[in-house]
Amino acid sequence: MRPIVRGAVLRVVAPSGPFDPEDFAAGVAFLRERYEVRHRSDVLDRAGYLAGSDERRLDELNEALADPDAAAIVAARGGYGATRLLSDLSLERVRDAAIPLVGFSDITALHALWARASVPSMHGSMVAALGRSSDEARARWVTALEGDGPTLEGLERWVGGVAEGPLLGGNVAVLGSLLGTPHAPPLEGALLLLEDVGERPYRLDRVLTSMAQAGWLDRVAGVVVGELTDCRPGTDGVTAEAVLRERLEGLGVPVVGALPVGHGDRNEALWLGQRHRLDATLGTLENVSASQG
Amino acid sequence: MRPIVRGAVLRVVAPSGPFDPEDFAAGVAFLRERYEVRHRSDVLDRAGYLAGSDERRLDELNEALADPDAAAIVAARGGYGATRLLSDLSLERVRDAAIPLVGFSDITALHALWARASVPSMHGSMVAALGRSSDEARARWVTALEGDGPTLEGLERWVGGVAEGPLLGGNVAVLGSLLGTPHAPPLEGALLLLEDVGERPYRLDRVLTSMAQAGWLDRVAGVVVGELTDCRPGTDGVTAEAVLRERLEGLGVPVVGALPVGHGDRNEALWLGQRHRLDATLGTLENVSASQG
Repeated sequence: MRPIVRGAVLRVVAPSGPFDPEDFAAGVAFLRERYEVRHRSDVLDRAGYLAGSDERRLDELNEALADPDAAAIVAARGGYGATRLLSDLSLERVRDAAIPLVGFSDITALHALWARASVPSMHGSMVAALGRSSDEARARWVTALEGDGPTLEGLERWVGGVAEGPLLGGNVAVLGSLLGTPHAPPLEGALLLLEDVGERPYRLDRVLTSMAQAGWLDRVAGVVVGELTDCRPGTDGVTAEAVLRERLEGLGVPVVGALPVGHGDRNEALWLGQRHRLDATLGTLENVSASQG
Repeated sequence: MRPIVRGAVLRVVAPSGPFDPEDFAAGVAFLRERYEVRHRSDVLDRAGYLAGSDERRLDELNEALADPDAAAIVAARGGYGATRLLSDLSLERVRDAAIPLVGFSDITALHALWARASVPSMHGSMVAALGRSSDEARARWVTALEGDGPTLEGLERWVGGVAEGPLLGGNVAVLGSLLGTPHAPPLEGALLLLEDVGERPYRLDRVLTSMAQAGWLDRVAGVVVGELTDCRPGTDGVTAEAVLRERLEGLGVPVVGALPVGHGDRNEALWLGQRHRLDATLGTLENVSASQG
């Protein structure tokens, strides 16, 4: 892996949905203050709800993986579309290139591939959102990208205890779409990150139920729950948090909620695939991968 | 299996979500004109978005399976909740009881269990909806329940050809939630029925993509697509039908659309688990299980 420092080459790709060209331009301009940004001229393509055809998005990602200078690959936006590429992406190519990927939400599907290839990837804001971000949020993103990510404190204890493992996961619905496919993340002993946006609580229940039945939840060392943005109750009043608590509190592993990670106002960047230490009793999550080195 | 005829015992259960008590009473009153209807007094229970606790719904279903007089088990309504029961339901009990189940939508999860147990089940309207149905719809439901279901004609040819196999499937999102679990339906050589309500086209794309990646779609002998009710395009304009056509037309098996089955005004009842003959060139679907007997 090439060091991610001032002047490093960042490849920007759009493997999922389309996005606002002005936000994108503003995000690229911000990145160019510090990095050398490369992207294809057709990155703004649209095909329905996709950022261009599967072929275009696949070629673009493979081109980024083949760039010998690239220190990181940064997604332009999520939405939907990354899962469509999984069958045609090469695990070996991701492993050999060893270039970290940055994104979240729909990019969860690619994070799972990076995890399978044992290449770290950063769960964090993407180019179009950076174009609209505060200076403070941008500065924190850069610090996370060039380091280990922040140590989060003040997390809500749902189930106390301490656990260590690689941080994996991301968007609940996207993780659910990996069930039963060859593209599921390697969750054995992992700290599972969960966040979502715009899902009714019963839908989160459905995915968590499937995960439990598929044996995913038995394998994890701990769970860290991020933002559940706009996951509003129906008339029955059952909240998304109540649903997740019910499914997670009986697992016998430490669980925390209220991570400032996901689709909320604050989206702290965390390094997936790297070993973290969760102290659910104290309410802290810390990247401890460096202490192994 | 006991014959389903006038005077037969129908057990009514609520394994999924709650429902309107007046619709339910009207549906039961209709059924009582012809059948002996049995249900527990707590069938109207509510617990959030569920028709009572998992324990209540599980006990109720097991009680119905244990009724030596029951000729069929009819769900009160779908919604969400049947998948939560799957891990605690006994395949052997369903097989030994050999009592057909009636329902659709969320009941798709139970249809999959019935299919695994080789017991036929009817994809059709449920008690609360029957309480609001026209006399004609009710009469067609009774005819289907006591027979083989209608031969459907005038279906839209998406991919021509002829195929035979057991009819299986149901709601796309619920089928998606069975991926990777031990509760998936046995799709090898089957005619796959798909319908849904209120899903954005990209979400249907996501589930179909997962099904393809899990190898489900390679195994089927044909696909029959029912109603895609309120599956409205986003601003991108991509329709649910376009999404399904893209995913299904390349499978190399016959495919039809526009089945009057699902959440639309007309919901023809079909017998899952029974052998059907799909002539996609002519646009017909017929139950041919009797011709094997």
